[in-house]
Amino acid sequence: MRFKCECSYDGTSYNGFQRQKNAPSIQEEIEKALEKVLGSFVKITASGRTDSGVHAVGQVFHFDTDLKISENGLKRAINSYLPSDIHINSVEKVSDDFHARFDATKKEYHYFINFGEYDPIKRNYVYQYPYKKVNRDLIYEASRLFIGTIDFRSFTKNQSLDNTIRTIYSIDFKWDNDLLEIAIIGNGFMQNMVRIMVAMWLEVGRGKIATSDLKDIIEKRNRTLAPKTAPGCGLYLYKVYYE
Amino acid sequence: MRFKCECSYDGTSYNGFQRQKNAPSIQEEIEKALEKVLGSFVKITASGRTDSGVHAVGQVFHFDTDLKISENGLKRAINSYLPSDIHINSVEKVSDDFHARFDATKKEYHYFINFGEYDPIKRNYVYQYPYKKVNRDLIYEASRLFIGTIDFRSFTKNQSLDNTIRTIYSIDFKWDNDLLEIAIIGNGFMQNMVRIMVAMWLEVGRGKIATSDLKDIIEKRNRTLAPKTAPGCGLYLYKVYYE
Repeated sequence: MRFKCECSYDGTSYNGFQRQKNAPSIQEEIEKALEKVLGSFVKITASGRTDSGVHAVGQVFHFDTDLKISENGLKRAINSYLPSDIHINSVEKVSDDFHARFDATKKEYHYFINFGEYDPIKRNYVYQYPYKKVNRDLIYEASRLFIGTIDFRSFTKNQSLDNTIRTIYSIDFKWDNDLLEIAIIGNGFMQNMVRIMVAMWLEVGRGKIATSDLKDIIEKRNRTLAPKTAPGCGLYLYKVYYE
Repeated sequence: MRFKCECSYDGTSYNGFQRQKNAPSIQEEIEKALEKVLGSFVKITASGRTDSGVHAVGQVFHFDTDLKISENGLKRAINSYLPSDIHINSVEKVSDDFHARFDATKKEYHYFINFGEYDPIKRNYVYQYPYKKVNRDLIYEASRLFIGTIDFRSFTKNQSLDNTIRTIYSIDFKWDNDLLEIAIIGNGFMQNMVRIMVAMWLEVGRGKIATSDLKDIIEKRNRTLAPKTAPGCGLYLYKVYYE
C-alpha cells in the first residue's frame, strides 16, 4: 500500500531535507517517527530536497507499508512522534505507481524579503535585506526576464547537470508594507536556483547591475557571472503539483 | 541625558522581560549590550514587563547616560552587541522627566490564534488552538463585554492589587483564513490579563460557557471563575502610547 503525505516544517534547525550522516535532517526525523508507527524502518521518497534552513508548507513524500491503518490514524500517529517543528498535514492512499518525485508536474516556491527595519521575530523566516536604498520597480522588472522556457545554467549550483533548461510559468510579487513575498511556479527548479535568481534581482534593485546585464548573464550560461545566493531562511517550498 | 528606546524581541528563549537571577531575560541582554556601549552598568526602565515567551514589536524603555553620542550612533552600537532575537528600532533623546512606565497612557497588545491545521513554522508565534469546532461569531460577541471601564479582578493573576479597574478602548478582530489577530488597546493591563480574557472568549466560542456566564464572571470579580490562560507565545506587546 502506497501513501502520499504532505508536510510542513521549520527548516531552521536542520541541515536540509535529505538524510545525511552526522547532521540533522527532516527526512531522518520523519523516518524515525514512521519507524515507531510501523514497527520497522521504511524509506520515504520526497518530491525533492530542500536546503539547510529552507522551510516547507507543502512538501510531498510517499512511502509503502503493508500495515492496515486509516489515513487519519496514520496522520495522527506520525505526528505524535514528530518534533514540534515538523508536521504532517495530510495522508492519502494512492496507487502503487504514484511517485512523489517523478510525478510532480509543477512546484511553487515563495521567497520573503524584509526591506524595512530588522525584525528579530522573523530572523529565521525572511531575508532581512541589509540595504535600504532599493528600487522596487527594478526588482520586479528584472524578474520578468525569468518567465518562460530558459536555460538557467547561470543560476544553479549544480553545474554537472546536462539539461539546465526549465520553464517558469509565473512570478508574482505581493507587497505588505516593507515585506515582499515572491511566488514562483515552474516545472522544476535546480539547486539554489530560486535563491540565485532572487539575489540577482536584488542586485538590479540596488543598482549594482542593469536589467540588460542580467539578460546577458542568462544568455552567457555561466554561474560565475551570477555569484550571489539569497539566504535559505527566506525560502519556502509552498506546493508540489501533480496531474 | 535621558534616552527613550523602542525595541522588538522574540520572547521564545527568555523568561520574560524583567531581569531575574538564574534565568535569561530581555532586560539583562539589553543592559549587557548597553554596558558594552557606555562602559559602565546602566539600569533600564521599561513601560512594563512581558511574561515568558511573550513577544514585543514596540516595547519602550528609557535610561540615562552622560556619554555624548548621537541617537543613531547609539542605536547602531547597542544593536551590534544584542543577540539576533532582540533589536532596538529607534532611539530618541527625551527630556529628563520622561518616564517609560509612568508616562505611558495606553498600550496595545495583539494576540494571534491559529484555528487551522497545526503550523510548525509558527509554533512559537501563535496559539495553535487544538479544538476545531469553534463558533467565530461567539468569540467576537464575548469580547464585546470587555470594552469600557471595568473591574478586571477576575482576569488577573495578581490578586494583591488594590485597584483592578482598567479601561479597554477597543478590541479589533482581523481574520486571515484560519488565523485570527486580535488587537486590544487599553489604558493598562495587569499580569496575564489579555491571556485570561482571550482564553475565556475561546471557552465561549467552544460552547463551554455562555456569553451570559462570562458576564457573571466579570461581575463576580473572582479569579477562580476564570481559570484559563492562553499561552504566552501568541501575545505581542505591539505599541506603547505616550502623550
